Amino acid sequence: MPSKPVQQFKHIGVVGAGSMGSMMAFAFCDLGLDVSAWDVDRSNVDKVTNWAKNYKNAKGNIHGFYNIDDFTKSLEGKGERKLFIFSVTHGDPADSVLGMLKHNLKKGDIILDGGNENYRKTERRQKECEKMGVSWIGMGVSGGYQSARRGPSLSPSGDPEALKIVMPLLEQYAAKDPKTNTPCVTRIGPGGSGHFVKMVHNGIEGGMLSALAEAWAYMAFGLGMKYEDISDVFANWNETGELRRNFLLGIGADILRTKRTPQGDQNGEGASNDDGYVLDDVLDKVVQDDDNTEGTPFWCVMESAARHISCPTLGAAHYMRIASGNRAERARASKKLHMPSPRPIEHKRDRKTVLEQLRRAGLELIARASEDEGWNINMGDCLQIWRAGCIIQSEYIADLLQPALTKNPVTNMKFVDEVSRELHRNFDDLKSIIIEGTQSDQYMPALSATLEYLKYEGGLELPTKFMEAQMDYFGAHCYNKPGIPGEDPGPVKKGPHHYEWKVA
Amino acid sequence: MPSKPVQQFKHIGVVGAGSMGSMMAFAFCDLGLDVSAWDVDRSNVDKVTNWAKNYKNAKGNIHGFYNIDDFTKSLEGKGERKLFIFSVTHGDPADSVLGMLKHNLKKGDIILDGGNENYRKTERRQKECEKMGVSWIGMGVSGGYQSARRGPSLSPSGDPEALKIVMPLLEQYAAKDPKTNTPCVTRIGPGGSGHFVKMVHNGIEGGMLSALAEAWAYMAFGLGMKYEDISDVFANWNETGELRRNFLLGIGADILRTKRTPQGDQNGEGASNDDGYVLDDVLDKVVQDDDNTEGTPFWCVMESAARHISCPTLGAAHYMRIASGNRAERARASKKLHMPSPRPIEHKRDRKTVLEQLRRAGLELIARASEDEGWNINMGDCLQIWRAGCIIQSEYIADLLQPALTKNPVTNMKFVDEVSRELHRNFDDLKSIIIEGTQSDQYMPALSATLEYLKYEGGLELPTKFMEAQMDYFGAHCYNKPGIPGEDPGPVKKGPHHYEWKVA
Repeated sequence: MPSKPVQQFKHIGVVGAGSMGSMMAFAFCDLGLDVSAWDVDRSNVDKVTNWAKNYKNAKGNIHGFYNIDDFTKSLEGKGERKLFIFSVTHGDPADSVLGMLKHNLKKGDIILDGGNENYRKTERRQKECEKMGVSWIGMGVSGGYQSARRGPSLSPSGDPEALKIVMPLLEQYAAKDPKTNTPCVTRIGPGGSGHFVKMVHNGIEGGMLSALAEAWAYMAFGLGMKYEDISDVFANWNETGELRRNFLLGIGADILRTKRTPQGDQNGEGASNDDGYVLDDVLDKVVQDDDNTEGTPFWCVMESAARHISCPTLGAAHYMRIASGNRAERARASKKLHMPSPRPIEHKRDRKTVLEQLRRAGLELIARASEDEGWNINMGDCLQIWRAGCIIQSEYIADLLQPALTKNPVTNMKFVDEVSRELHRNFDDLKSIIIEGTQSDQYMPALSATLEYLKYEGGLELPTKFMEAQMDYFGAHCYNKPGIPGEDPGPVKKGPHHYEWKVA
Repeated sequence: MPSKPVQQFKHIGVVGAGSMGSMMAFAFCDLGLDVSAWDVDRSNVDKVTNWAKNYKNAKGNIHGFYNIDDFTKSLEGKGERKLFIFSVTHGDPADSVLGMLKHNLKKGDIILDGGNENYRKTERRQKECEKMGVSWIGMGVSGGYQSARRGPSLSPSGDPEALKIVMPLLEQYAAKDPKTNTPCVTRIGPGGSGHFVKMVHNGIEGGMLSALAEAWAYMAFGLGMKYEDISDVFANWNETGELRRNFLLGIGADILRTKRTPQGDQNGEGASNDDGYVLDDVLDKVVQDDDNTEGTPFWCVMESAARHISCPTLGAAHYMRIASGNRAERARASKKLHMPSPRPIEHKRDRKTVLEQLRRAGLELIARASEDEGWNINMGDCLQIWRAGCIIQSEYIADLLQPALTKNPVTNMKFVDEVSRELHRNFDDLKSIIIEGTQSDQYMPALSATLEYLKYEGGLELPTKFMEAQMDYFGAHCYNKPGIPGEDPGPVKKGPHHYEWKVA
């Protein structure tokens, strides 16, 4: 049933046919579009061409191209404008490909940049393309390659006219909220705001990934649970209650059930007769921050620092991840530092209580991470597009926040009654987890950062009182006084009082 | 005894006569130079002029100027080149003042920028000035206003010729290491490297300030100690052992002894008959990140993120400080979150043991923070200039690290045997502090981040194993396998294995 939006475009060009681009090619083909695909790497083009050959029920045609001029020519004369989806590594590679493409672009053409890009670079490319009358739409695409194939969460931004034209097509493509069938796509705003939202999504994803990994290790090493039992716990959390329909829990449960088999996966990976878990084939290295292939998490830390947003959970998660990548350095450090390894927790309490506490600690993190997203963008809309198709999908959080945020937009989530109630309710559980985990040397950087954050964010007698006095001592920083109207709490501004602690 | 370097210059122009600039004016006057001082704010000029009038034993003359052209004219004809010291708020204010000054500069003039500036902006100004034959030297000045008066720690960088010319004067001005009388100044390197080093200094300072503030609160609220008793502890730590001659401990001890008096300080601040502590006049707000008057701590977080350096302690300290500034928001949050306040620690152990543990936890932080400084700059030199005059001055650390780093430069401090031995020795103490502090709801963001960091930096079975599997699941991230040469530990690079956990 090729509908209007598809009839309008008929043909789409996929620039970059890696794991995301190739899946998008097939997804648009399923919508009835003809697809031209190009990649700088010929083997990626071959892969798409081969898959297309074996694809029986294709609704459109898929053609691979080695030559970028032939590729763009194939899109000419199919409508008033050419439409591209761009999926190239951020930064220089993306600039280089845009340079190769540019002379074949003309007025009215639309490029949807579905990669992860720094929003400032997106805005630079938007200005560059505007001069030619070409619309460059920065568009966050979330959900990994499976979602790119079946329907991802989309956050496009840029030229409003071009957005109006492509939205019907994007609404067809996007994941649908299973509750309401609403597509998980919205026009985020002008400029690079769509890529900004995606960056924040990935920052939150980083915090959630860490909390979940810490919970897994806590259960495996602290509670001595078997992988399949942990899988059952994750699946159970994912089914009902506050963590229901949480994407990462779902795939975590899958992973913990996946065993090596004699034949392995479709490419023979994980082939073995030993009946072990594929997870145990995986080393504890996460490298894509250091090799710069994935920019979003460290951009997120940089942006939060530049904008003076306190997000210790995301920071703590990110710093562990950076350290994880350099295993060779850790191996050397481990010989020098002799740090303890996580041990089974002594005096084990009723296991169910601990798990319930862990579940709430995870929720804590999610609510906390969601909160960092206080950036002038309609949060209700973000929650809508994060309902399905994306990595940080979490139904309970969306149900909790969306009505409150639609009713009454706030920038600080803690002021939403529903959130503060949750945060308060879970505090003691998180605290117990941290105490027992610290005693038995579990790794809990993101979880413990969350506990500390909750304490100081809701505290009115912080240690920073002493810090402020020290800075007034050596730097004449000037303080506010307690109990004085206009100073306590007062604005975020230098105070009027300097005490000459020591004459210069 | 005006020596050669002073005879060479005779006269210096101070651009910006705030708390730092005015103190530098008097310091150079004490060295025998005549000083011209200008500020965009007339009241600052008046202050300097009035102080100068009352300064009996001045070795040089000090003149204040309202008009910047008169100011620069006063420096003409006093030598082959004009010398300025620049002390203006970073960013736009500094650019604006340079714009006002520019037409009076000529070939050979040297400007020492003693403010805190983002090193990229310093490099931009260096290029701008180079075109006129003017040398712009970015120079970190540490130690607060008392040190600016009596001799600070200096980290200049830029044009090597100009540096050669000013170094003798800077060596006279700089603080001296009391052990060897070596001046705490060194040519850091080219471009903005001097301001980069100062930025790192301030990042470390942020971590130390937080650790100390957390230790103060722990003793005051957790152990129920009186301010004067805490002061004695700090003074004692400062006197001998690992924390000896630590600047922040010294002034911390002073602060905890400073009482309000009927007459108050020289300006009547802190005047009261109630015999209370001045510290209790200070609210727990630290605002200079948010109002952007102090850029260095958040630049440091941004730079560490951009360079993929794991520095959770500095991050955690910074995030609490950001949250502290907005007390109005915390006041609202506290009503919603109902977080517990720090309580006295139950089952109090022998106090001396706890204090010894706290002392070592502080040391942990210092060694840890020093370590983040792995940035291509000669660490031995940095340690030398940080021996006196600056905020992060810490004799034990300098004694510990300087010989090792001069002998054998490394970028990761943990590999220095002396450091790893200290870190290992203090781990259990830090852990006990965290457990008891968490039980009694103390605020410990920087201390707990340090504990977590030590665990994962020396760990070889991190939770990131599960994270890596999750990212391979949805993102085809490709992992390394344990025990395979070239992969374990292997380089910080994408691995060769992808398992198709779920077909797209």
